Amino acid sequence: MADKKTALVISAHAADFVWRCGGAIAAHAELGYDVTVACLSFGERGESARLWKEGKGLDEVKAIRREEAEKAAEVLGVKELVCFDLGDYPLVLEKEDKFKLVDLIRKVQPRFMLSHSQYDPYNTDHMYTTQIALEARMVAQAWGHNPGEKVLGAPQLYLFEPHQTEQMGWKPDSFLDITPVWDKKRAAMECMNGQVHLWEYYERVAQQRANHFKRNSGGQSGGRDCKYAEGFQSIFPRTLDEL
Amino acid sequence: MADKKTALVISAHAADFVWRCGGAIAAHAELGYDVTVACLSFGERGESARLWKEGKGLDEVKAIRREEAEKAAEVLGVKELVCFDLGDYPLVLEKEDKFKLVDLIRKVQPRFMLSHSQYDPYNTDHMYTTQIALEARMVAQAWGHNPGEKVLGAPQLYLFEPHQTEQMGWKPDSFLDITPVWDKKRAAMECMNGQVHLWEYYERVAQQRANHFKRNSGGQSGGRDCKYAEGFQSIFPRTLDEL
Amino acid sequence: MADKKTALVISAHAADFVWRCGGAIAAHAELGYDVTVACLSFGERGESARLWKEGKGLDEVKAIRREEAEKAAEVLGVKELVCFDLGDYPLVLEKEDKFKLVDLIRKVQPRFMLSHSQYDPYNTDHMYTTQIALEARMVAQAWGHNPGEKVLGAPQLYLFEPHQTEQMGWKPDSFLDITPVWDKKRAAMECMNGQVHLWEYYERVAQQRANHFKRNSGGQSGGRDCKYAEGFQSIFPRTLDEL
Amino acid sequence: MADKKTALVISAHAADFVWRCGGAIAAHAELGYDVTVACLSFGERGESARLWKEGKGLDEVKAIRREEAEKAAEVLGVKELVCFDLGDYPLVLEKEDKFKLVDLIRKVQPRFMLSHSQYDPYNTDHMYTTQIALEARMVAQAWGHNPGEKVLGAPQLYLFEPHQTEQMGWKPDSFLDITPVWDKKRAAMECMNGQVHLWEYYERVAQQRANHFKRNSGGQSGGRDCKYAEGFQSIFPRTLDEL
Amino acid sequence: MADKKTALVISAHAADFVWRCGGAIAAHAELGYDVTVACLSFGERGESARLWKEGKGLDEVKAIRREEAEKAAEVLGVKELVCFDLGDYPLVLEKEDKFKLVDLIRKVQPRFMLSHSQYDPYNTDHMYTTQIALEARMVAQAWGHNPGEKVLGAPQLYLFEPHQTEQMGWKPDSFLDITPVWDKKRAAMECMNGQVHLWEYYERVAQQRANHFKRNSGGQSGGRDCKYAEGFQSIFPRTLDEL
Amino acid sequence: MADKKTALVISAHAADFVWRCGGAIAAHAELGYDVTVACLSFGERGESARLWKEGKGLDEVKAIRREEAEKAAEVLGVKELVCFDLGDYPLVLEKEDKFKLVDLIRKVQPRFMLSHSQYDPYNTDHMYTTQIALEARMVAQAWGHNPGEKVLGAPQLYLFEPHQTEQMGWKPDSFLDITPVWDKKRAAMECMNGQVHLWEYYERVAQQRANHFKRNSGGQSGGRDCKYAEGFQSIFPRTLDEL
Repeated sequence: MADKKTALVISAHAADFVWRCGGAIAAHAELGYDVTVACLSFGERGESARLWKEGKGLDEVKAIRREEAEKAAEVLGVKELVCFDLGDYPLVLEKEDKFKLVDLIRKVQPRFMLSHSQYDPYNTDHMYTTQIALEARMVAQAWGHNPGEKVLGAPQLYLFEPHQTEQMGWKPDSFLDITPVWDKKRAAMECMNGQVHLWEYYERVAQQRANHFKRNSGGQSGGRDCKYAEGFQSIFPRTLDEL
Repeated sequence: MADKKTALVISAHAADFVWRCGGAIAAHAELGYDVTVACLSFGERGESARLWKEGKGLDEVKAIRREEAEKAAEVLGVKELVCFDLGDYPLVLEKEDKFKLVDLIRKVQPRFMLSHSQYDPYNTDHMYTTQIALEARMVAQAWGHNPGEKVLGAPQLYLFEPHQTEQMGWKPDSFLDITPVWDKKRAAMECMNGQVHLWEYYERVAQQRANHFKRNSGGQSGGRDCKYAEGFQSIFPRTLDEL
Repeated sequence: MADKKTALVISAHAADFVWRCGGAIAAHAELGYDVTVACLSFGERGESARLWKEGKGLDEVKAIRREEAEKAAEVLGVKELVCFDLGDYPLVLEKEDKFKLVDLIRKVQPRFMLSHSQYDPYNTDHMYTTQIALEARMVAQAWGHNPGEKVLGAPQLYLFEPHQTEQMGWKPDSFLDITPVWDKKRAAMECMNGQVHLWEYYERVAQQRANHFKRNSGGQSGGRDCKYAEGFQSIFPRTLDEL
Repeated sequence: MADKKTALVISAHAADFVWRCGGAIAAHAELGYDVTVACLSFGERGESARLWKEGKGLDEVKAIRREEAEKAAEVLGVKELVCFDLGDYPLVLEKEDKFKLVDLIRKVQPRFMLSHSQYDPYNTDHMYTTQIALEARMVAQAWGHNPGEKVLGAPQLYLFEPHQTEQMGWKPDSFLDITPVWDKKRAAMECMNGQVHLWEYYERVAQQRANHFKRNSGGQSGGRDCKYAEGFQSIFPRTLDEL
Repeated sequence: MADKKTALVISAHAADFVWRCGGAIAAHAELGYDVTVACLSFGERGESARLWKEGKGLDEVKAIRREEAEKAAEVLGVKELVCFDLGDYPLVLEKEDKFKLVDLIRKVQPRFMLSHSQYDPYNTDHMYTTQIALEARMVAQAWGHNPGEKVLGAPQLYLFEPHQTEQMGWKPDSFLDITPVWDKKRAAMECMNGQVHLWEYYERVAQQRANHFKRNSGGQSGGRDCKYAEGFQSIFPRTLDEL
Repeated sequence: MADKKTALVISAHAADFVWRCGGAIAAHAELGYDVTVACLSFGERGESARLWKEGKGLDEVKAIRREEAEKAAEVLGVKELVCFDLGDYPLVLEKEDKFKLVDLIRKVQPRFMLSHSQYDPYNTDHMYTTQIALEARMVAQAWGHNPGEKVLGAPQLYLFEPHQTEQMGWKPDSFLDITPVWDKKRAAMECMNGQVHLWEYYERVAQQRANHFKRNSGGQSGGRDCKYAEGFQSIFPRTLDEL
């Protein structure tokens, strides 16, 4: 485990990290974490419908998406935003791309990682990204990969909330209170000019998850209040000294 | 959530709490928890083969099992052992028995509860107990059940490790280090004279789970050591301020 | 299949039918369906916290809950509200209670039925109700049960949306547009004076499900608009002449 | 394990054992097994539609169903047919009924048992029967239940094929070749006069399963022929000296 | 959604569309649909055993399989049969092949799509095809893929019936009555000269599914008759105005 | 089915076959099987931490791992050890590598095959290997792949025990008694000098599985003894003449 508090988000498309775990990023930044975000693509082809309808070209779309992502990252307190620019729909990582991701994981030495759900029939880029995240995590742990480098420990991989959770077979086991940083998440979402209708959508997601937070933290009979929350599913078990 | 640190184990048969979560009991007793154990039966018919082979009668079997359970509970630092004496194979709770269990839950106000896996084709008493634990937890939360009493919050229900985990569909998400209290668990197991062959069996379980503890807490590249552990599956999600 | 358009909701507690399928009820009432609602209990003990905190007694609580349910049913256009008054937390149906439910099913001859999710560790009354709904549906189909009565066909059993869907293993396969009747559902919810905070909660549920409706009906490239929707999971397969 | 070759079928309704495992019964009878069939009810209310339509009364229906079952059992070579006559739709076993079943299990000392699938939303009697079979098996294994009697070993519980397998979550792991005894199964099915349409249905089931037998025993490149087969799902794992 | 009624079948091997959804194709053709079938390979290596045993060469096998497929397509009323000729055992699509499939999807603008089950340990080409179908569907929906082309809406992807359904984890949620077009399906199957034994097999499949159709459409108490049917599993939820 | 008794193990890394199915190999060698082991890589990068810590280079690591594997194979009675040397972390098979594996399968004509679990988030090489095993098995069955060669029948694919079974969704359905060959497995494990701590770990695994063997083969009331066992999960169903 790194001495420094660190976290790494692996996001298929440029905006995913904002909607799905912007609260977790901002909250951990305030807790003193260095949070790194890896965007494997800009979501330029598949998640920029408005820009294409306006007649923008590929380079313009990518530039706009990059700028939005950078602004959002800054608002959230992201330490570093790394754009891999690998293309989307479909996203494909060649061997060298995977090793670049391994390099980043080793550089960051994250205490925990965040990525997509393991199944998504609407968006195969998402499930592919999680598969790659697991593969890269494994390589980063190998003593024989670039011997001499510091190998990775065994950080948790949290899966952030997909759209239409039930279709994805995603089941949250952890709810994070993001009330104190809600303004930052909202501001980061507002950097995504092309998706105004999603601002309200994800505000409601956060409110519903806050209700779930309360239901599980003591409920009507004494639980502390919570206005906004995010849910996460853990891949790996926890190790504890107290239940 | 109770101010006092408290925990409640709901065990179908007298010895279950020793093999399956004796370490968790001892560890939390040392952490200052008041741990209450509810044994719904003595396992007199189904889990006392040696005594029956020796020709003991029902009352003798129950007395011996009770004594073993009491000794083990003392060794583990259990605050109170409550024997419901409801009979086993099959275990059945009538409405009044369920309400007695609700009374106990409300009296204890546990921060967390422990019970069996949700499926067990070898032992239907086990899965029935978990179903009852959920039902009693729900009733204990109801403002209209014995109005005026303090209602229950929303404690976690951890499922302790069944025999042949894979057949039961049990998947641990939490490993607890019980190394510091291992001697107590071993001593408690040795109170179960009729099941000597299980002493070694559950020592090995604890050693294997310690290996899993290490694999998930940093692994070969720096994780702290652990010699004995226990695994648990959570029914309800966690609520957090930091992942 | 009945010639008349009919539907039957089987609800564990008095208010469940409002939050979980009030839109479906109102929409089908407008489509000419006779919708019957069976409330197996008033949710008097477990879902009336505010009334108990105010010091009400059991009969008062039940009377208030009944009145609320009746008002909501009227707003939604329910044809008949049948209160079984069987008690809650836990809800238990004896053999004669089940047969009363069978009688109702046969009387209504529903084209489809609605009930709870099949798993709910927070609320065992809910999953018990669905188990009973399946059992009663089966008995109602039997030629040898009260021979001479008209037997039931094979209506769909839709499971309405539980709280914290992912924890319940509930996955919707049908989204119903309730935009035209939203005002009725909102008005029905407002009959539930003791649960003001849930008005907003279930409004947001309906908005999120509307988004899912749009995502699955053509999406950004031409799908018709939808502001409020409800989701349902089918137990039985459909029979079709066109996919 | 009994020295004598023995098997026990636990069937919710009188005809179930014929359609679902008549081939297995006949095949094992020819292999020298004493096969006992326990019919918990006659399926008088729920599975005798034709008789009720003809205006028969309850006792007549039961007598006819019993006679059919006896004839079919004889054709299949059943050693003993035990009719519990507990009623159906719904089937309910009180404590003493369960103990009667335990007595039978102990008397038979089966090498293997056969019963229904673990889930069946169309027919809750079926899944209830399997739950009871597991409970009775457990009690029969207990040294403290009727001490002095010979306890049960650990026989496999095979789940025979339900109607609409996919809806029941039933997955066969064993296909039994019943070609040599097909004539007996067909003849036994023809004892069920009220369900002529099912004769062809279950003949086709046997033919399809024969195809699956061949696909898994060497297939197109050399597998032996098989014209009729039955499929089974095992609850418990196997123990082997050779894979 | 396209104004014209259109459907697209994506089939790993040349004959798959006949056995698995020939009835759906013929039925929709009669309903006025333009049905396009994409065969990614001819199944030349893996599903043409008889031809290889006769000593045919690769080109001959492919020519024969193509001819059979063309005949069957004509019988079923297929609008266009597109042979990708990508090879089988294993089937592999390079990026350009995927884009060719995307082009076809966009050209057809299907109201619904049909493909294989998501798991098949016997035939990895099948599950790979479904994975590709989801990926291509996603790309076809992207505004940034070949900007200016008409993007795809959100058509259902139905999974047609695999061999040995239970092994594939396939669960049908829709049964289609194909009685009126059965003669066409039978005739199309008879175009597959090399697989005579399968003609009877799939006739029986259709008869069994017809039984399931009846069981779910009202059953013994009034359901309309059905002699032949096909089953399908939906990937995506439905959007409705009436349950 | 081959006349000769043959088996094939497909192992991602050099040592996997020892820990996970060394007992099955030795037991079947004693039963007269020719057992072939295919190691797709040496596990040089990912599973040789000690060697890298000692400063060894890649070629040295591979040579040492090969030598260990060869020694272990000899101890276990392996007929042939085939090292594909494809690299690990991540393991990747190109088309020609897959065909080499198909060649081997056809040469061996195994009665059964052994490989990894189908899911492993800790080690993506493992799950990838099983996917490849299924694909290669399918190609080996194709009459059109290298026509004239003897095609493969339909051997079982057993999945051997992964680390942390519950995390992998692995559920054993077969326990093999390896008591008579335990000394060989222990000796083979001791060939793995770099992983001394695993010797005890896998000895305990074998002891625990022996307990499960006994629980399922008659249990306390007469089952034969077993000191060491291995567990396996079957992909395909069995075909039988006797249950």
